[in-house]
This record gives sequence, C-alpha cells and structure tokens, in this order.
Amino acid sequence: MRMYDIIMKKRNGGELTEQEIQFFIEGYTKGEIPDYQVSALMMAIYFQKMTEPETAALTLAMAHSGDMLDLSEIQGCKVDKHSTGGVGDKTSLALTPMVAACGIPVAKMSGRGLGHTGGTIDKLESFAGFNVALSREQFIENVNKIGIAIMGQTADLAPADKKLYALRDVTATVDNMSLIASSIMSKKLAAGADAIVLDVKTGSGAFMKTLEDAVALAEEMVKIGNHAGRKTVAVVSDMDQPLGYAVGNALEVKEAIDTLKGQGPADFTALCLELGSQMLVAGDAAKDADTAKAMLQQVIADGSALKKLAQFVEAQGGNPDWVYHPEQLPMAGHVVDVLAPAEGYVQKITCDEVGICSLMLGGGRETKESEIDLAVGLVLKKKVGDYVQKGEALAQLHINDLSRQEAVTKRLLDAYIIGEEQPESSQLIKCIVS
Amino acid sequence: MRMYDIIMKKRNGGELTEQEIQFFIEGYTKGEIPDYQVSALMMAIYFQKMTEPETAALTLAMAHSGDMLDLSEIQGCKVDKHSTGGVGDKTSLALTPMVAACGIPVAKMSGRGLGHTGGTIDKLESFAGFNVALSREQFIENVNKIGIAIMGQTADLAPADKKLYALRDVTATVDNMSLIASSIMSKKLAAGADAIVLDVKTGSGAFMKTLEDAVALAEEMVKIGNHAGRKTVAVVSDMDQPLGYAVGNALEVKEAIDTLKGQGPADFTALCLELGSQMLVAGDAAKDADTAKAMLQQVIADGSALKKLAQFVEAQGGNPDWVYHPEQLPMAGHVVDVLAPAEGYVQKITCDEVGICSLMLGGGRETKESEIDLAVGLVLKKKVGDYVQKGEALAQLHINDLSRQEAVTKRLLDAYIIGEEQPESSQLIKCIVS
Repeated sequence: MRMYDIIMKKRNGGELTEQEIQFFIEGYTKGEIPDYQVSALMMAIYFQKMTEPETAALTLAMAHSGDMLDLSEIQGCKVDKHSTGGVGDKTSLALTPMVAACGIPVAKMSGRGLGHTGGTIDKLESFAGFNVALSREQFIENVNKIGIAIMGQTADLAPADKKLYALRDVTATVDNMSLIASSIMSKKLAAGADAIVLDVKTGSGAFMKTLEDAVALAEEMVKIGNHAGRKTVAVVSDMDQPLGYAVGNALEVKEAIDTLKGQGPADFTALCLELGSQMLVAGDAAKDADTAKAMLQQVIADGSALKKLAQFVEAQGGNPDWVYHPEQLPMAGHVVDVLAPAEGYVQKITCDEVGICSLMLGGGRETKESEIDLAVGLVLKKKVGDYVQKGEALAQLHINDLSRQEAVTKRLLDAYIIGEEQPESSQLIKCIVS
Repeated sequence: MRMYDIIMKKRNGGELTEQEIQFFIEGYTKGEIPDYQVSALMMAIYFQKMTEPETAALTLAMAHSGDMLDLSEIQGCKVDKHSTGGVGDKTSLALTPMVAACGIPVAKMSGRGLGHTGGTIDKLESFAGFNVALSREQFIENVNKIGIAIMGQTADLAPADKKLYALRDVTATVDNMSLIASSIMSKKLAAGADAIVLDVKTGSGAFMKTLEDAVALAEEMVKIGNHAGRKTVAVVSDMDQPLGYAVGNALEVKEAIDTLKGQGPADFTALCLELGSQMLVAGDAAKDADTAKAMLQQVIADGSALKKLAQFVEAQGGNPDWVYHPEQLPMAGHVVDVLAPAEGYVQKITCDEVGICSLMLGGGRETKESEIDLAVGLVLKKKVGDYVQKGEALAQLHINDLSRQEAVTKRLLDAYIIGEEQPESSQLIKCIVS
C-alpha cells in the first residue's frame, strides 16, 4: 500500500477502505508518512468529503493510535460528557457532581482553555493544591470510592489526532465536518466511557456559528459514537451569549457552587439539568428525562451534589472547605463596573468578544504556553433581553492590572448592542440529536 | 502576508495576486515555507484551477527563482525548441544543426532521459568525449563561433520548479494543466531564448494521451510564453507510435545523421521540417513556412547541416569524424530479430511499451541514478500500416545482455497489434497553436 495511491484515490472521489485509513494513520503516527503527503490528503478530503464509513474508520484509527483507556474496573455505566467549547461554560464543574450524586460514575478527562474559550482543568486549579495529574490507579480508585475524578488529558490519548489537528490548523483544512467530528470523537472513544453526551454549542461564541452547522456536527458525532458501540446523544445549545453570568476561572467556580446550592443562573441551571438528564438516561440511572430531572433537582435541594463536589475537591488535593466558603477562592484586587452608555434593551452580546475581554484581563491563554490569572474575569450584570438604564452597570470587571481597564471596557462596550425594542428571547436548548 | 491565508484563498476559489504567488515561490525556494503547506496549496489548485494571470505569475516567479540566462551576447534571434518527450524522439539531434545551418543561433539546454523517454544529453554522449557541462562563457562563445551549443541543465535554472515538481510527484498533484505548463515554461523562460517552438506530443507514448489534452497544454504554454514577451508557437505531433525507427541512444544518433544526409525516415524528416520552419519564421530567418522549408531542404541537400553537426560535436570535445563514419559510435554485441507471429497489417504499436523495451535492454533509466548503456536499443522494421509476413522481422534488438532477450521480445510482441484490415493512416502533425 502506498500513501500516494491513497491521496490519488481520494482526490478522484473514491471511498477509502478501512485498511487504507488505518495504514495512513499508523504510518503518520509513527512518522513514516510525511506531513506533506498528509496535508495533500486533507485538502483532497476537504473537497471530496468523507463518507460515513470513512469517517467512522478514521475516528477508530485515531482512537487506537495511542492508549485506549480501560475503565472496566469501575463499576456501573460510565457516561462521558463533552462540550465543543464556549464562553462562561462551567458546565462540568456543576454537572459532574450532580450526576455523580445520582449514581453515575464520572471518570473524565478534560482540557485546558485556549483563545477565547476556557477549560475545566484550569477552573479546577482555582482550588489551591488541586491535582489534575492523577495516575491511572488513583483515577480509578477515586471514581470507585467517591464516584468522581477528573484529570488532564494524557499525551498518549489519540496522538494521531493531536498531530493531524496541528497540521490541519496550518494548512487551511480544519473546517470539514467529518474531520472535526472524528477529531473530537477519537479522544472520547479512547477515553473509555460506555456512553457519551455531547454539548454542541452554536452561535457567536461557538466554533459552529450557525445552527445548521452545529446540527450537522452533532449528527456526525452521534453516528460515529453509535457506530463504535457507545450510546451517544448530542444536545445542541445556545452560545450566542455567554452561559450564565461569570466568565473567568475562579469566578466560574463560584457560579457553579451557587448552582449546586440552587442559586445559579437560570440558563446555566437549565443546561445542567438537560445534559444531566441525558446522562442519567444514557447511563440507565433513570427511566426517562422527567424522572432524571427530578433526581437532579433533588440532589441540589438536599445538598448532596454540593457535598459531592467537596469530596471530589478533597480527593484531588484541594481544601473542601472552600466549596462551602468560596470567598477563599482567588479574588482579583479590583472590581470595577462597566457602565451602560445609553438606556434600552440589550439586543445582542457578541459572545467571543466577551471571552477575549477575559483573556485580555489575564484569565485566558493566547498560546499554549501562556500563564493565566485564575482570579480575574468578568461578571455580566445584563444579558440579552434585559433592560438597562444609562449609567447602570452592564458588567463588572474583576481585575488585577488596572492598566488594562480602559481597553477591556471599550471592547466589552463594543460587544454589547443596546436598542429600543425588546428582542425576541432565544432558545437555550436548540435540539437533541440521538 | 501569510501562507495560510494564501492556501485558504485558493481553497475558497479566490484568484491569487502576483504578490501572493511571488511570496509563496520565494518563501518555498528559500525553505521558509514548509512542504506541507505547499502540498495543501497544490491540492487546492488541483480542485480550483488557476486563471491565466495566476498561471503567468507562477511561471515568471519560478523562472526568476534562480539564474535567468542572459544570451544578449549572442547575435541574432535565439529560438529555443522544447519537446514534451516521447519514444525515439531524436529531433534535437537533427533539427538544431539544420536551423543553425540556416542562420538561427542555437543556445540550448537539454535534459537526460527518465523512464520510457530518452534525453538529448544522453544521446549526445554517444560521441566519446562529448562535454555537456560547458561554462557560460564557453557556451556563448561556441554559439557565436559555430552557431550551436547544447548543454545540460544547470542546477540553478528555475530551482523553485524543481522543488515543486518533486513535491507534486509524491502528492498526486501533477496532473493540472496550469501546473504542467508553468513547470515547462519556467525553465524555457529562464533559459533566455527570444522565441520558443514547442513540440507537444500526443498519444500512447506521450504524457498527454489525448489530442484534447495536448492541445489544451499547447494553448496554455503559448499563452504563457507570449505573455512573457517571447514569441511562442506549439506544434502538436503524433506520439502514438515511436518517431522514426530507432529507439536507443547511439541508434538514434545514427538515424539523425541519416536524416541530415537526406536518408532519414519520412515521419521524422517531416517533423524536423515542420519544427524547423516554425523556428526559422519565429527567428525572422524566413518570411514564411514554405520559404523556410525550402531553406531547410537546401542545407540537407548541400551537406551544410551535416557539417554543422560535425562542427558542433568537435566544439564540445567529440570526434567530428564519427559524424561521417557513424559505425564508430557505440555498438551492441548482438543484433537479434523479433519475428512476426502472424501475417497482416500492423494496426497499432503501444508506444510507451517500446520505450520500456529499450529501458529493459539497458538504454534508459529506471531512476535518476541508473547508469545507461548507450549502444543498446531497438530498430523497428515495421510501423503502423505496414504489411508483415509471418516470420518476417518486426524489429531488431541491439542487445548486450542476452539474458534479457526473451523478456524484451515478449513485451515488444505484446506492444504490436497485427490484424487483417489496413488501418487508416494517422496524421503526424495534428495542429499548430500560436
């Protein structure tokens, strides 16, 4: 088998066999097939697309390019959850203790933030001493003991995907639905869960700007997951404005804690209940979505979800007391208001711009090597549809370096569009794909 | 300017500017732009094609990526000739002395053979001591003194094309008309001639198998040449069977000498007259094609073309006496007949297969590093339309290693198709594109 023939076949519109896809992924992972042949193939795929069997084969080949996590020592049906990323998306922080408290074992790998989107691992490090680098044994032991463990992604999870994504990123071959779907799903399959619930974001703060694209991606991923024998469901949800009010690491942890106390933002709480109920049903912990939602509301009401978070923080080296006294989490030196320049209804908040404001304050990473400030960020006071008086606070900046205040304030004001008419309210949950 | 944006623009169907094309070719030549970005761009070009201005800009950028030969010290209008390659194509050997004898200065760079096609430089080396590595000064001095000089391509002629072609060759991005045309023409433009006559081959022994593709390539190249201010004409000619009878280095030299004596094969002589007349007209040495043909016939009849070949061989270190006594050229140890298995008319000779037979005998190169045997090859006795008796010779093998006889004989017989009906005769000159 020759890589040249594989490129030619795809270029001419042929369908690659499972063997051809395995050959290319194995050769590329080992460094036997050069980047320049792979980038030519990626561009050919961009133009000729991939069929469903090709996409499934690519995903499996990438999943098997490194370690396949074996979670069989964990009792019960392991349900993983993945978000395509957004601004203020602290879902894992609240959701995983909720489902763990309902009896679903959570054995999760998470990533760090990059650009305008945050990452669960960074947020968890707001708890001083929190250890995200667990050994496999510790990881499994924690799940079996307290029902929850979250660790950083190991280097050897789907290395082919890592290498391929880096190449696509510099050769203008990222935006193909099959390639995006297989990249996400290869890591999920390698991470070993029995069922997968996907949160596919759509809107100005999401990778998929349009609902149509988000649904197409959700459909691709659900097909791949089910094809690989993992029960997979996707929730397509709104990311046209930040989720909840808080954007920034420790600020989001506080908002997640509020939510576990039953005092969280309505949109964020609703999303956690929706995703959580899908997880409980997928993991056979509830017979239907209504039952599942009631169970989740119960673990909030009786405090067991919050207690689960405290157990989880303690098991990974943090101080559980901070869960009950979140004022001990990192706090910025200054809190300054961003004032509305005019009165009216908030029509729109350009979502990725809010993420960039947090990044400018030091709360995000420009490059993989950037250090982040866990304390800083923003708390929105007004969201789309809210009425604001001139001079009233639109948001608060939690800031350490005051020299950045002016630029961030200007950028945030540019992200808010205020007008006379009350805008139609936008749906948080767009659809469920299963 | 970023290479990423250039790839993205072409991928999305945009037209690259001259500046963008220059940026990419300069960066690639210097090694600042990596292969993997260039191969992605080549694949995008394969799908999106290139416009005429893009193709012209690419050709000029590649021509200027290395030395631009300055032939201004040579008096007169320099006319270059290029063949897209074929089997038995010894045209340059006879044609260049013919036009030089008519007063057109020939300052030519030629290549070596690869695969089933031969190269002028190899053929010239059949003259013992022939030096193809002239200095620039010697090259120009020879042309000014005797009207003709041919040398091997220097490494620094269009290095961007060399690098790009090698990359396209392993990434399935060779077959795009604009890329093929710009590859050929970049070297021709850099080689410094005032006018260019192209011999575009079509048929089973040519790179362009169909007449349609050959004409399209001819048109692309003529446009590029004229756009760059060089008078350019293309002759589209038949390569569906070998040109003349001889295939193999010294054998072809002998046939070229016969032709300069007026005793050459009809097809080969006709092609030399057609290409030669185009060169004389392009170089303002004749007012029209009929006048030019008469001039060319005259230099054959009076022996001055043959004398020009002798002067040329002598000036580059060979023995001019061999031109008059070609039996001194390398000669194979054995000459064996390949006999017709049946009687009938030759319907077809699969042309590239004949080239491969010569290669199997040792007369061609499998890879760039192969050594070749100048003496070996084949002389066809029957061509398409000829009648052959069973047991009569179809061809003669000139062979040194008799262990190869059986395999070559079998392959050559497979290349001949013999049948009852006399086939329609095929036109040698398909059309002229100017």
